[in-house]
Amino acid sequence: MIKVGIVGGTGYTGVELLRLLAAHPQVMLQAITSRADAGTPVSQMFPSLRGYVDMPFIHPDQAHLDKCDLVFFATPNGIAMQQVRGLLDEGIRVIDLAADFRLQDIPAWEKWYGMSHVCPDLVAEAVYGLPEVNRAQIKAARLVANPGCYPTAVQLGFIPLLEAGAIEPASLIADAKSGVSGAGRKLEMGNLFSEAADNFKAYGVSGHRHLPEIRQGLARVLGKEVGLTFVPHLTPMIRGIHATLYGKLTREVDLQALFEQRYAREPFVDVMPTGSLPDTRSVRGANHCRIAVHRPQGGDTVVVLSVIDNLVKGAAGQAVQNMNIMFGLPETTALNNAALLP
Amino acid sequence: MIKVGIVGGTGYTGVELLRLLAAHPQVMLQAITSRADAGTPVSQMFPSLRGYVDMPFIHPDQAHLDKCDLVFFATPNGIAMQQVRGLLDEGIRVIDLAADFRLQDIPAWEKWYGMSHVCPDLVAEAVYGLPEVNRAQIKAARLVANPGCYPTAVQLGFIPLLEAGAIEPASLIADAKSGVSGAGRKLEMGNLFSEAADNFKAYGVSGHRHLPEIRQGLARVLGKEVGLTFVPHLTPMIRGIHATLYGKLTREVDLQALFEQRYAREPFVDVMPTGSLPDTRSVRGANHCRIAVHRPQGGDTVVVLSVIDNLVKGAAGQAVQNMNIMFGLPETTALNNAALLP
Amino acid sequence: MIKVGIVGGTGYTGVELLRLLAAHPQVMLQAITSRADAGTPVSQMFPSLRGYVDMPFIHPDQAHLDKCDLVFFATPNGIAMQQVRGLLDEGIRVIDLAADFRLQDIPAWEKWYGMSHVCPDLVAEAVYGLPEVNRAQIKAARLVANPGCYPTAVQLGFIPLLEAGAIEPASLIADAKSGVSGAGRKLEMGNLFSEAADNFKAYGVSGHRHLPEIRQGLARVLGKEVGLTFVPHLTPMIRGIHATLYGKLTREVDLQALFEQRYAREPFVDVMPTGSLPDTRSVRGANHCRIAVHRPQGGDTVVVLSVIDNLVKGAAGQAVQNMNIMFGLPETTALNNAALLP
Amino acid sequence: MIKVGIVGGTGYTGVELLRLLAAHPQVMLQAITSRADAGTPVSQMFPSLRGYVDMPFIHPDQAHLDKCDLVFFATPNGIAMQQVRGLLDEGIRVIDLAADFRLQDIPAWEKWYGMSHVCPDLVAEAVYGLPEVNRAQIKAARLVANPGCYPTAVQLGFIPLLEAGAIEPASLIADAKSGVSGAGRKLEMGNLFSEAADNFKAYGVSGHRHLPEIRQGLARVLGKEVGLTFVPHLTPMIRGIHATLYGKLTREVDLQALFEQRYAREPFVDVMPTGSLPDTRSVRGANHCRIAVHRPQGGDTVVVLSVIDNLVKGAAGQAVQNMNIMFGLPETTALNNAALLP
Repeated sequence: MIKVGIVGGTGYTGVELLRLLAAHPQVMLQAITSRADAGTPVSQMFPSLRGYVDMPFIHPDQAHLDKCDLVFFATPNGIAMQQVRGLLDEGIRVIDLAADFRLQDIPAWEKWYGMSHVCPDLVAEAVYGLPEVNRAQIKAARLVANPGCYPTAVQLGFIPLLEAGAIEPASLIADAKSGVSGAGRKLEMGNLFSEAADNFKAYGVSGHRHLPEIRQGLARVLGKEVGLTFVPHLTPMIRGIHATLYGKLTREVDLQALFEQRYAREPFVDVMPTGSLPDTRSVRGANHCRIAVHRPQGGDTVVVLSVIDNLVKGAAGQAVQNMNIMFGLPETTALNNAALLP
Repeated sequence: MIKVGIVGGTGYTGVELLRLLAAHPQVMLQAITSRADAGTPVSQMFPSLRGYVDMPFIHPDQAHLDKCDLVFFATPNGIAMQQVRGLLDEGIRVIDLAADFRLQDIPAWEKWYGMSHVCPDLVAEAVYGLPEVNRAQIKAARLVANPGCYPTAVQLGFIPLLEAGAIEPASLIADAKSGVSGAGRKLEMGNLFSEAADNFKAYGVSGHRHLPEIRQGLARVLGKEVGLTFVPHLTPMIRGIHATLYGKLTREVDLQALFEQRYAREPFVDVMPTGSLPDTRSVRGANHCRIAVHRPQGGDTVVVLSVIDNLVKGAAGQAVQNMNIMFGLPETTALNNAALLP
Repeated sequence: MIKVGIVGGTGYTGVELLRLLAAHPQVMLQAITSRADAGTPVSQMFPSLRGYVDMPFIHPDQAHLDKCDLVFFATPNGIAMQQVRGLLDEGIRVIDLAADFRLQDIPAWEKWYGMSHVCPDLVAEAVYGLPEVNRAQIKAARLVANPGCYPTAVQLGFIPLLEAGAIEPASLIADAKSGVSGAGRKLEMGNLFSEAADNFKAYGVSGHRHLPEIRQGLARVLGKEVGLTFVPHLTPMIRGIHATLYGKLTREVDLQALFEQRYAREPFVDVMPTGSLPDTRSVRGANHCRIAVHRPQGGDTVVVLSVIDNLVKGAAGQAVQNMNIMFGLPETTALNNAALLP
Repeated sequence: MIKVGIVGGTGYTGVELLRLLAAHPQVMLQAITSRADAGTPVSQMFPSLRGYVDMPFIHPDQAHLDKCDLVFFATPNGIAMQQVRGLLDEGIRVIDLAADFRLQDIPAWEKWYGMSHVCPDLVAEAVYGLPEVNRAQIKAARLVANPGCYPTAVQLGFIPLLEAGAIEPASLIADAKSGVSGAGRKLEMGNLFSEAADNFKAYGVSGHRHLPEIRQGLARVLGKEVGLTFVPHLTPMIRGIHATLYGKLTREVDLQALFEQRYAREPFVDVMPTGSLPDTRSVRGANHCRIAVHRPQGGDTVVVLSVIDNLVKGAAGQAVQNMNIMFGLPETTALNNAALLP
């Protein structure tokens, strides 16, 4: 059994992590911390967990996280970097679901996240937790930076094309749409039902924190910088990301075969048949990324459609996948459920 | 392993049954029939099942249902009654998720459903599949009539009060609200997104088919007829039923204790703490019924709030629960997952 | 031209009031105040008003409300009572869209609203702004207490029955469902999209502030106290209230004729044909209340279905209707638009 | 007064047209035809119109459309072309809200719409009803082809850039998102609430009928063919289109000034301030198109955000705007209302 602690479990990433871990046969949950809600039973805040998680949130000082084998950080950005070193020093492995260890470029991180980084050396050590790219390094990692939701959907869609040198890397476009849970369980005006329902809008057009993360990931795969325009949108649904990706083809290539081969052994990337139109509900509550590749009108623009559940493959599910890899378990353990449809 | 067949799997009840059975360790799915869609891969119609159900819909004539141990009917009303006798004769057990065997009063059934019943003798034999009332009979049954969605939520809310003689049985009120999937995967104008979204309405006020079913169930518990006003409403969500039940108290009683004791051993009925307000999402995708009991302003009206997922405890989940009981499996097998929240 | 000021225009009631007044041919908007947002152009906060309201929110101290003929308060509860006397003393008429002047029973008000009332004498003078009951008094009023949203829908549904002595007044039940905008433009967790969407729940079962307001209104009509159980629910739509009302008939009465006669001359109460099922979208953005009356199964329970748009007939529209009455304008001025459907 | 007839008023375009015309001071509605629903009161099908439209649908044979000054066709594609000649011959002007007269290239039309065109000569005469491009021709037209919803949003966003020669015309990308009402009031599985809610998907990626219409419109403006990739998506809201447009800049240009100048005199195109993010609800129920222009990270990709209400500026509102132009009325007559927000 893996003894697991969760720091900061009161957000949507936290409750989703709890849902998944509660069904994991190899996990023993040790503690879930929250400063603000210490003492509150988890199942009082999230009645969906009644009967599944029978413990209260506990103050970090009393959580004895040093007894854990693995600690997940489901905290706001900037928290994990302050606590990770102590845990690692005690031999505890860490998966950070926030952004503290995602960007190798420290000045860039500091610019986009508006704070100083306190442990650049650990950033250098951290492994970016996208199993489809870094499976071997994840297996050996002490510290995994779990990818962002948009970066997961966008990278998985562009990677086969970039690896094959099939598109111009200088003019990539990622038009991405997210459900509102992607904004977190936060009291912001734009997240209110009466603001977000029956409405659609772009945001972060001038610059979104996931832009440098995506660029970094694509540059690693390509071996050089990419040019990317990334426009995220808010769509009136709870869960789901739909990334519509545009690239200019540089040569003739069998797009369908390219994608199928790249992901042939991936348990959670589903390359759909030619002509498919993946919808976000086909991954609701599941860890899958479904991808379809199109070449409209036979022109030189390739269009990739990539969908994930932002809280599962885009957050908590991918974190559990990484945990499974790190601890030598079958990668699909506790993640092998079909999506909830309708 | 239980060899299972499904007749008519192209509706929401069907896809939900497939989702649950795909995760059931003791079930081997033999066939899913559909006349209209024979030959179509199940996962083409429901991409959420890609990788979980790898067979096509098959024409009933080719389905070899006689090889099954159990057949589920997820068909429109009036189909199962035409096919059940043959299956029973071959020793195959049947769970009907439609209404063919729910009402013992054949003339009433024929009036409400607008057709003649072809096997009244089997109705007499059929067991009403509400485990919280009929567990022993279900265990022994050849033929189980799986309850309707509204009847499940309403009966579970009223039963403790009626059994205890705590309310006047002549003036019960059930004000129930259902998500749109309760109307089925049917091409009716009122089910269109642009008709049902951002909208709320009552329907079936003059009479709904679930009214006699609820009355029958409550009368059985009480030992005499009840007077019930039942008003269903359509609410703009996909899944979920919220029944708000009103009764007039006839005597002082500890309502909270009454409910807790009645359901103390029930794995899927959760009596929430005093003052709770169950929301439908707390059971989304799960087989639970969550109940809270209130006595507003200390008056003589008791208000029971009862929520279920209409496709799970209100249909496919309860059917799997009945199957588990019939075949001597732990009752929670394949049903022990937490709800999807948010 | 009526010179109009609005105190506190940053909530949903405020923006709706602005939308309606912008189209009113007899209104000249003088000022819209906000402490927190003084200086912000109204149309920056509400882009829907670009080209219609070209002024900024202004600090109350600079608003020169004394130049107005009428001031609307679209403020949180407890604000208007502190400012109304000064305005009235200067001969300015006031419509309060909050609750400060709704309850004649001051101790009850203080209990339900959790504060001391600072001007009970003005409460005594205030006219409850339900035109269908108090049109003459509204016409002459200096100070109008605009009704709450639930109270409008519930009272209009019960009034014909109570006036006719057709139902038992001791056991009324009002099961009401509201869209999320009814909770206001407030940063509360339950109002988040990811909490309220695809979800349904009751709230305020033990007691809601609109309960005493409804009881007061019905008692006035009846001439004695009524017994009422009021259960409000939150439904995942932006606008709309659907009240489902239950009463026990005391005598035979032509229900349809009763309602039609009661509201024959009312421009904004639409008694629908027998058997109708009003949906909330049929009044979306409009000042109508649509009502249908049913007697299920011919029993002794009458069921009234009453729908309004909570922001229009339930708030800003009724306020404009009251203004029209107070200033001798045709009552439908600026309110004569059809609902937005779909 | 303009005597107006509507052919085919039972869809969403029809009910929206009725809503707008009911408030038009210069319009007298003569007849609304429907074969299937002849005899049904309009307000029975659309209760939102109770009190506003007091006539039944009438069979086309009895409609006396020859008494009209103007006939709107709100019919499926292929109907108007069969009836228009007769009306024009009698001196009646026509606005077709369907696609019969939108494409000048008859073979292209026949390919995309799957039928033979019966009056190519009238196509040649028809004026494409985008006032921002063709106002003078519309004024004089006998026959106006009202633009499609996507084409309106996309063209208005690209036109200033193409007219100014500011972007490469060979590689335009239009990523567009539509509410479900764009699919019409049609019984198709994908339009069901339980299919479309809480879900997001692309469709028509391989080719959508609005693609040639957009290309034609942009080519006219540019004077030569454009290269366009157009990907429409379905988003879970009722009304609204959000077009996200991408172009590659060919030279330095003050984008904000370019757009502001182009639309300075347009009553219904609102160029929002720099940095704005228009949301679809800001035009809900209104005839406005709101546009913002961005240049992310100062790169060479321009991003235009263009929003309309697909049923208003994208259909019925633009039709009324065209009517106003054709009959010499102020262009904003009956269209000068603010959007419904929230």
